[in-house]
Amino acid sequence: MTATNLAPTKKGFPAGMTEERLDEIRLLLDTRRTGFSLEAPFYTDANLFNLDMQAIFSQHWVFACSVAEIPEPGDYVTLDYGPYSLIVLRTDDGGVNVLHNVCRHRGARVLTEPSGTTGNLVCGYHSWTYSPDGDLIHASAPGEMSFDKACYALKRAHVQVVAGLVFLCLAEEPPTDFAEVAELFAPYIGPHELAKTKVAYQQTIVEEGNWKLVMENNRECYHCDGHPELACSLFPTWGLTDETVPTHLTDVWERNQAAQAALEFRCRRYGLPYEVIEDLGRVAGIRISRESLDGEGESFSADGRRLSKKLLGDLPDFRLGRCSMHLQPNSWFHLLGDHVITFGAYPINAHQTLVRTTWLVADDAVEGVDYDLETLTHTWKQTNLQDKAFVELCQTGAGSPFYEQGPYMKSEYQVEAFIGWYIDRMREHVE
Amino acid sequence: MTATNLAPTKKGFPAGMTEERLDEIRLLLDTRRTGFSLEAPFYTDANLFNLDMQAIFSQHWVFACSVAEIPEPGDYVTLDYGPYSLIVLRTDDGGVNVLHNVCRHRGARVLTEPSGTTGNLVCGYHSWTYSPDGDLIHASAPGEMSFDKACYALKRAHVQVVAGLVFLCLAEEPPTDFAEVAELFAPYIGPHELAKTKVAYQQTIVEEGNWKLVMENNRECYHCDGHPELACSLFPTWGLTDETVPTHLTDVWERNQAAQAALEFRCRRYGLPYEVIEDLGRVAGIRISRESLDGEGESFSADGRRLSKKLLGDLPDFRLGRCSMHLQPNSWFHLLGDHVITFGAYPINAHQTLVRTTWLVADDAVEGVDYDLETLTHTWKQTNLQDKAFVELCQTGAGSPFYEQGPYMKSEYQVEAFIGWYIDRMREHVE
Amino acid sequence: MTATNLAPTKKGFPAGMTEERLDEIRLLLDTRRTGFSLEAPFYTDANLFNLDMQAIFSQHWVFACSVAEIPEPGDYVTLDYGPYSLIVLRTDDGGVNVLHNVCRHRGARVLTEPSGTTGNLVCGYHSWTYSPDGDLIHASAPGEMSFDKACYALKRAHVQVVAGLVFLCLAEEPPTDFAEVAELFAPYIGPHELAKTKVAYQQTIVEEGNWKLVMENNRECYHCDGHPELACSLFPTWGLTDETVPTHLTDVWERNQAAQAALEFRCRRYGLPYEVIEDLGRVAGIRISRESLDGEGESFSADGRRLSKKLLGDLPDFRLGRCSMHLQPNSWFHLLGDHVITFGAYPINAHQTLVRTTWLVADDAVEGVDYDLETLTHTWKQTNLQDKAFVELCQTGAGSPFYEQGPYMKSEYQVEAFIGWYIDRMREHVE
Repeated sequence: MTATNLAPTKKGFPAGMTEERLDEIRLLLDTRRTGFSLEAPFYTDANLFNLDMQAIFSQHWVFACSVAEIPEPGDYVTLDYGPYSLIVLRTDDGGVNVLHNVCRHRGARVLTEPSGTTGNLVCGYHSWTYSPDGDLIHASAPGEMSFDKACYALKRAHVQVVAGLVFLCLAEEPPTDFAEVAELFAPYIGPHELAKTKVAYQQTIVEEGNWKLVMENNRECYHCDGHPELACSLFPTWGLTDETVPTHLTDVWERNQAAQAALEFRCRRYGLPYEVIEDLGRVAGIRISRESLDGEGESFSADGRRLSKKLLGDLPDFRLGRCSMHLQPNSWFHLLGDHVITFGAYPINAHQTLVRTTWLVADDAVEGVDYDLETLTHTWKQTNLQDKAFVELCQTGAGSPFYEQGPYMKSEYQVEAFIGWYIDRMREHVE
Repeated sequence: MTATNLAPTKKGFPAGMTEERLDEIRLLLDTRRTGFSLEAPFYTDANLFNLDMQAIFSQHWVFACSVAEIPEPGDYVTLDYGPYSLIVLRTDDGGVNVLHNVCRHRGARVLTEPSGTTGNLVCGYHSWTYSPDGDLIHASAPGEMSFDKACYALKRAHVQVVAGLVFLCLAEEPPTDFAEVAELFAPYIGPHELAKTKVAYQQTIVEEGNWKLVMENNRECYHCDGHPELACSLFPTWGLTDETVPTHLTDVWERNQAAQAALEFRCRRYGLPYEVIEDLGRVAGIRISRESLDGEGESFSADGRRLSKKLLGDLPDFRLGRCSMHLQPNSWFHLLGDHVITFGAYPINAHQTLVRTTWLVADDAVEGVDYDLETLTHTWKQTNLQDKAFVELCQTGAGSPFYEQGPYMKSEYQVEAFIGWYIDRMREHVE
Repeated sequence: MTATNLAPTKKGFPAGMTEERLDEIRLLLDTRRTGFSLEAPFYTDANLFNLDMQAIFSQHWVFACSVAEIPEPGDYVTLDYGPYSLIVLRTDDGGVNVLHNVCRHRGARVLTEPSGTTGNLVCGYHSWTYSPDGDLIHASAPGEMSFDKACYALKRAHVQVVAGLVFLCLAEEPPTDFAEVAELFAPYIGPHELAKTKVAYQQTIVEEGNWKLVMENNRECYHCDGHPELACSLFPTWGLTDETVPTHLTDVWERNQAAQAALEFRCRRYGLPYEVIEDLGRVAGIRISRESLDGEGESFSADGRRLSKKLLGDLPDFRLGRCSMHLQPNSWFHLLGDHVITFGAYPINAHQTLVRTTWLVADDAVEGVDYDLETLTHTWKQTNLQDKAFVELCQTGAGSPFYEQGPYMKSEYQVEAFIGWYIDRMREHVE
């Protein structure tokens, strides 16, 4: 990581980071006001973004894709975020390798497509050829003698596949905490059997906002009135308790309570885990819960009815609501009886974030027969675009010198949990 | 203003400004060569731009719009410059409020249109609702108890309406000098009765140049050969005196002298102020003068004849030439018998400036009957585009290390006055 | 050059360069690993780019154009690179002037077209008028008395025309080494008589890569499998020796040897210089060589046959292979019996470079009769686009913190020579 580091005396910190600036950042971190949004530089400053990349995105486990995106040996996806470029590749033995997409000869990108299928990996510049494990197996320099190919394998990143979800970590020594968390969430994901799903659709959008604004927006439903399509299947009671439910929502509240009780009953009968796990402050911060849906309670449709006719895995019933999981730093998931949606937020720079959304259905579901693609994807395509607009409103606002940290509401406690987690990780990094 | 300040130890200076850099800027200011254009960093450097925003655009009175743009209660325009975003809003009692367009909850832009009409101001993200005075009157967080809405009003800026021109100031304590200057120019603007005008047209263009190049260009007519449309109504004797008028311009000079004498006569008869006021160096620098026009002497048309058939206010005569006003830092105005044009230059960044031009006619003038919109706006639309090209030539030139400060000619003394004013203000700020 | 320098205390170094950063750059230069590509900041860092502009592009002789581009008095081309903007102008006496394209009044660009014909040079802003020598001959400020025009000539750069190739140097005292090198290459270029050629076509492309990546790519043919059109006329034996030629290339090798021997024989018979000159490390680094072409051996066509029917100058024969010249820092040339191609790489910023390619044919060659424009330009148009893609692969790769300097192969020794030359020049500059 020292390659782009113009400041050898401050090894380990990103290019352009001076001691002075680092002290300022330490002060910002130490004086962060709990319960309030971040100070503006966290959303706008390029130096702080570089530090985010280093402290968060090169240290933590990051969701890459599901195995459904790389079902066969040789299948790969490429993934770029911040300054990093990676290849996630299915190997012959069914494993997954993650390789840095940087040729060891002259630094060229080796694979240039977002996804595809490959045998060996051949750099397009001078045909340096790497095995799927990253070993350099061919470098056809004419007349070259004393050149030790063993020194020039593609660099590898750590990888872990949990219940069909692929995570990577760029750190030399990944945080060990993740294994424990994986054990917690695997039982929730497992029954949906992602290995037996296929990609129905993938949407990639660029939001003109800092990645933390994308995540803050994701971690609260206080703004969900702005999601009319999603609101059809969600109960509008997010963040409420028995004590705080307003009169005009009493009916909905009771319908929600009944639906939730029925969902718990079904889960327990089918042996599906039901408990809420919420531990957003730990290194591999997580929240997972099962929530009933309104209407038929099956899926994200206008009437709550299933969007694909094929049940996933060997699930016993469509009426399983949504199993929703949040992982720090950058992913969230909705698992339903009929389909699964995975979301990853990948920072581009201080003010742009790529959000990739993937819809998975049973691998034997037939488009046009078992599901209509437009209908399947409608709710979250719309929701994503609405969220993009919200994030962008905040990014422009944070640019004003008259922006001031605002208070998170009680119903936004998960936003506070995310930001608190972020501040803790950054503090650890700069100390 | 400390929100985006990454450098708490240098409170009051913009993010990224180091002591070292500040010393360099102080030296540039102290060694400025009088009578010459600025050194290149003043036109190109991002740090200096940030300092301009702070020293000039957040400290001084800035022209926002005329009351004709917000005639009715609830009418608003939004105004962005540098990092600032503002709402200029007509209130029920006929006053004008200026509010920072930054929601106090999560920093979202509250109003996103350039102009419109609103009752209360509702943020599109979580529906926080503010009164036209900026008070937070509704924040519908479910289950929120201990939250003091009184602490979260939209921030307000100072506002002053002078003879129908709206000025705002972002400083905590605005410079007091402006009130005195307002008394000077109000008698010139007043008779045109802007409250009884309407917007015929508004043009917004982005010039690829530093705001100071836009202003320098505005403060001299040495380049007016490059404005063929404007030249029809202006006498080509700008900057000349009895002593310096060249032989080939003797005729024009005499025609100009006669027209000017006639104009003075008419003004004195009608009781309209005629004296030139020129005090460009004071904090609220100003120049105002009445200048005769060529041809019919009524308006900015090819033959000098009126462009709208309705006289403004209770003016007694179309033949009033132009009453032209320059205000530091960023506005200029032409007031004629038949219409008024207001101009504001709003910096975007070190190398881009938005220029907004608004044509006002009598509110009872009917388009297509009393005036032809294309003809009314032709001269200044063309002139603005020509000025844009001039400014852009200079901006690219200033980028060369071989650019060197060039001499302002005698006829460019108002440019020197503007630059001298700017240097003085900047020196005060960094001391 | 102090005009854009925000740091008067570090006179001579570009704006924004701090002592701290300069020390880091010195360390990077001192610890450069011989035989390996550069560390990432050399390809990506804006401060280092500014230093490149200063140490290399404002100090060394830079190829501007050939005389064929400005055949008549008054003909000019403008040339922009880094922050510089220049006018290369043919004078009445047949000489060439190079003037900084920055008006001495307010810094405006004087000429705004890429090329054209002019008498005096008139700035479009205030009509300041300069002679072709750059002298200010007219500044029509009204009423100006005490203004010494002699102080405001356009700044001039040094210029040297060698065998029809125009070179410029922005330094006060150009390196003297170039005169010696010009004597070396003039005998190779001379017989092609560029003064009797005309421009058949000029292609300007922007490569999204640092200028050094453009040059590295130019200085090796290890990647030439990626140039199928070019490969038709080149022997695929680049970088090989008797000892290292692989079995499958034995036939080609022998054909190449025979063609090269025949080429040498012809050159000696015609009195054309044949020896390879390779001195890439000197201040005005150079390589020039004659290389046989495959097939008919005449030109860059699919079958090696001539692409224009008119021989250049008084050359005696089409079968002269290619005379190829590389000059540090930024140009290369191919001279053939029927046409000449000149190439210049002009940095825009740290990650963009403009590459200008010009095809010259005999001035009496008639398009459509003596040559087909599409066929003439096909091979190098394609080759340039392929090279652009290669450069761009490397630029994106260099952005990754996991990029690491890679080894140049033996066949890439000219790349090492270029990079070694660059490092030496930069070290001299920062010492």
